[in-house]
Amino acid sequence: MDRTRRAERAIAESQVIAGYSRYLELIADLTKGKRIVSSGMRQETERCRKALELAQAGETVALVSSGDPGIYGMAGLALELAAAERLPVPIEVIPGITASSAVAARLGAPLMLDYAVISLSDLLVPWETIRKRLEAVAAADLVTVLYNPKSKKRVKQLEEALALFTAHRPGTTPVGIGTAVGTEEEQIVLTDLDQALEKEIGMRSLVIIGNRSSKKLLNWFVTPRGYRV
Amino acid sequence: MDRTRRAERAIAESQVIAGYSRYLELIADLTKGKRIVSSGMRQETERCRKALELAQAGETVALVSSGDPGIYGMAGLALELAAAERLPVPIEVIPGITASSAVAARLGAPLMLDYAVISLSDLLVPWETIRKRLEAVAAADLVTVLYNPKSKKRVKQLEEALALFTAHRPGTTPVGIGTAVGTEEEQIVLTDLDQALEKEIGMRSLVIIGNRSSKKLLNWFVTPRGYRV
Repeated sequence: MDRTRRAERAIAESQVIAGYSRYLELIADLTKGKRIVSSGMRQETERCRKALELAQAGETVALVSSGDPGIYGMAGLALELAAAERLPVPIEVIPGITASSAVAARLGAPLMLDYAVISLSDLLVPWETIRKRLEAVAAADLVTVLYNPKSKKRVKQLEEALALFTAHRPGTTPVGIGTAVGTEEEQIVLTDLDQALEKEIGMRSLVIIGNRSSKKLLNWFVTPRGYRV
Repeated sequence: MDRTRRAERAIAESQVIAGYSRYLELIADLTKGKRIVSSGMRQETERCRKALELAQAGETVALVSSGDPGIYGMAGLALELAAAERLPVPIEVIPGITASSAVAARLGAPLMLDYAVISLSDLLVPWETIRKRLEAVAAADLVTVLYNPKSKKRVKQLEEALALFTAHRPGTTPVGIGTAVGTEEEQIVLTDLDQALEKEIGMRSLVIIGNRSSKKLLNWFVTPRGYRV
């Protein structure tokens, strides 16, 4: 985990720390003596609401996300709830290192040129919309980061996504897979479009698909920016 | 500036600190007593080469970028040069908070759904390629972050880009502009597609264009993820 000074300071200054229980375990060293509001997955709305209620009651509350709270995290929901319920609490969003950046750094430098970030989870967005986006960015030769590529029950989306990219890019296009990055179970795999589906990809993975100029250099995945080398 | 513990540690452990002179000034407190290799803008290649040479001579070298070195930063060039010149130096890329995340956090939560990151600088990429990418992501309703939107000499690209988005999204679509974010001259402006061109946008700005579901909520720019609120 790459903690920022700013996030550490915000936690130190808060009386209440709210978040998904698993993430709170990772920062247990920062939260001693503080009131903890933790809950399981898929309880985002109630967790946010509780955090806002406590803030309105006068507490300073840190609502903790993994990665960047503004990218598939909790920031949007907290702001939406505050606006919907007209809760006049001051809110500060503190950015973090999003999984794209963390995984890209472990692979080399795949995101040196224009890129797109697309989640394959169709829980909140219809698959047809996601599919249309994948098709557009595949055709426009954008490096593409896939969040939530696969879960136990959801496997077809990734197959379809990779097939779309294979229609527009050579099968040798580099594909990087980062799983549980920043934890002890971290796994980094550099493969290509043709072989990506054979690799282990799960709930905690992120997949980065290169564009037509991306290369494997030594063991690095690099998208050259165009400098003369 | 949001410093990570990890980057601070890497700088502390290095004997040589290389980077663009202006960025090095911002971290002067971390570099006392160290050898400094600084140079001006557009001297990226020689700066990287020098850093690699010193590393090969046995020094631990920190090559400093602003934001995330892996996103329009120096990581790719360093890896390309190391591979091209077969320099057997171990390289670690340390991710940072990219400008998209920093500006998004100041605006609210515009990046809660799928998004694209596109640089309007045609110094290293032909404008026709950039234009095609803009057209694709505008049509696919992706939130879009424009890096290098405008410079003194380059103004038409931004006009063209905004016109492309206006063809696919209502003129009331939120547009956020962050300039010199994280510095004392920081400016944050929330406007919309119709009025964005009238606002001050320059070399140090980043522009975020909402998708069709993005909203202005109180003074926040939010792209709702789809939770029922």
